[in-house]
Amino acid sequence: MHTALSPSMLHLYDADNTIVVIIDVLRATSTIATALYNGASYVIPVDSVARCIELGSMPDTVTAGERDGRIAEGLQHGNSPFEYSRAFIENKVLVLTTTNGTRLLYMALEKGAKNIITGSFPNLSAVTDHLIVQKQNVLLACAAWKDRVNIEDTLFAGAVIAGVKEHFDINCDASMMAHALYTEAKPDVYGFVKNKKASHYLRLSGYGLEKDIHYCFTPDIANILPVYKEGKLVAGTGSAACSKAGLAAS
Amino acid sequence: MHTALSPSMLHLYDADNTIVVIIDVLRATSTIATALYNGASYVIPVDSVARCIELGSMPDTVTAGERDGRIAEGLQHGNSPFEYSRAFIENKVLVLTTTNGTRLLYMALEKGAKNIITGSFPNLSAVTDHLIVQKQNVLLACAAWKDRVNIEDTLFAGAVIAGVKEHFDINCDASMMAHALYTEAKPDVYGFVKNKKASHYLRLSGYGLEKDIHYCFTPDIANILPVYKEGKLVAGTGSAACSKAGLAAS
Repeated sequence: MHTALSPSMLHLYDADNTIVVIIDVLRATSTIATALYNGASYVIPVDSVARCIELGSMPDTVTAGERDGRIAEGLQHGNSPFEYSRAFIENKVLVLTTTNGTRLLYMALEKGAKNIITGSFPNLSAVTDHLIVQKQNVLLACAAWKDRVNIEDTLFAGAVIAGVKEHFDINCDASMMAHALYTEAKPDVYGFVKNKKASHYLRLSGYGLEKDIHYCFTPDIANILPVYKEGKLVAGTGSAACSKAGLAAS
Repeated sequence: MHTALSPSMLHLYDADNTIVVIIDVLRATSTIATALYNGASYVIPVDSVARCIELGSMPDTVTAGERDGRIAEGLQHGNSPFEYSRAFIENKVLVLTTTNGTRLLYMALEKGAKNIITGSFPNLSAVTDHLIVQKQNVLLACAAWKDRVNIEDTLFAGAVIAGVKEHFDINCDASMMAHALYTEAKPDVYGFVKNKKASHYLRLSGYGLEKDIHYCFTPDIANILPVYKEGKLVAGTGSAACSKAGLAAS
């Protein structure tokens, strides 16, 4: 089990026969879990607003994405998980453009990763249960912020490690650091991030998005496993985690 | 003030009008501080064994470097700070080849850094005193291990931040993480690194180098400021830190 704290270190790690967990806590992977948990047919992660608009012409499709804290021009919705209630998103396709998370997912694909899932606090147990059941190599890949390491993605990597470490050999300093940081933060992850003046916390709270941040640090509130398959993120099935998440979501 | 946890993130940070602190705790920058503290005329960091041998033909010069825990073929000495007592190294030139630390220093030079010093626990106060006096931007640059983040360099970055944070604006998640990690480790840094099974701790202790590791986590035991000038690392002068270190070393 390894942790790449930034996309700039992704190339250092093996992606063959490895489950790559894409982590973009604020807010891409939290919102992806929420949309699928609430019954979205699937999520298409795209890397540009133009591509988002193009795919949005399909029926029952919602386009979403933000730039600088506002809905990007030409798109319908933003990146907040609160926009994707069951009443709104069930049986629809969400085409989502985000910067850091989507870019990292495409980097993992280019690197040849064949087994990609997404992780966030809202689906923490779905991720850890899946990893324990699958017993494969794991790469926790943090989306970071324009390649700069961030606290929240590192904390989520640490939370995953805390949940699975009895089942894995971990000889990776980045993983040990993430785990140590999470152990310190665990009693109040939101408070820890706020207290440390995490740069993305400051950015989002500056946009008035405290409620989003709280949600994105709430474990298992949308406990489903997003699995990447042929351009789409779909609700996973087949592992203990997925079954449990599927039941919870139904 | 920023922290680059790996050379793979150095390009993300500005080096103009910035003091770049090269950090390679186990053991390059600890040994550099020790040699200068014990009266070496200067240290020439080089990136290959061949270049080390070439420069070793100058009078009063000691060549040093290891590969895989052994003195590299053709060189005279290793990377252990214990090899550089005053009786041995005073008034001599140390030509030192290391992999991660030297490579990072050259990367910083290529990036245009004009103000480079080296840091390690043995010269912690010399570094923090210097940074406080200089009042410039600071980039704490960790040598890491083949671009993979390591615990010990991160901890030293955290120790520097702990010492200077009242004097700087810090809006950098990597710095906050390093500081949080160091705060946890501070009561027993050696024990923390051992307990976390840091990869380089395991590597060096496997070579029987526990004594080196203990030394490299001892603050201010060789409290001098190595400053890079025209291909050489020399004992710095001119700041409060340097004066103090100079007195201590005399």
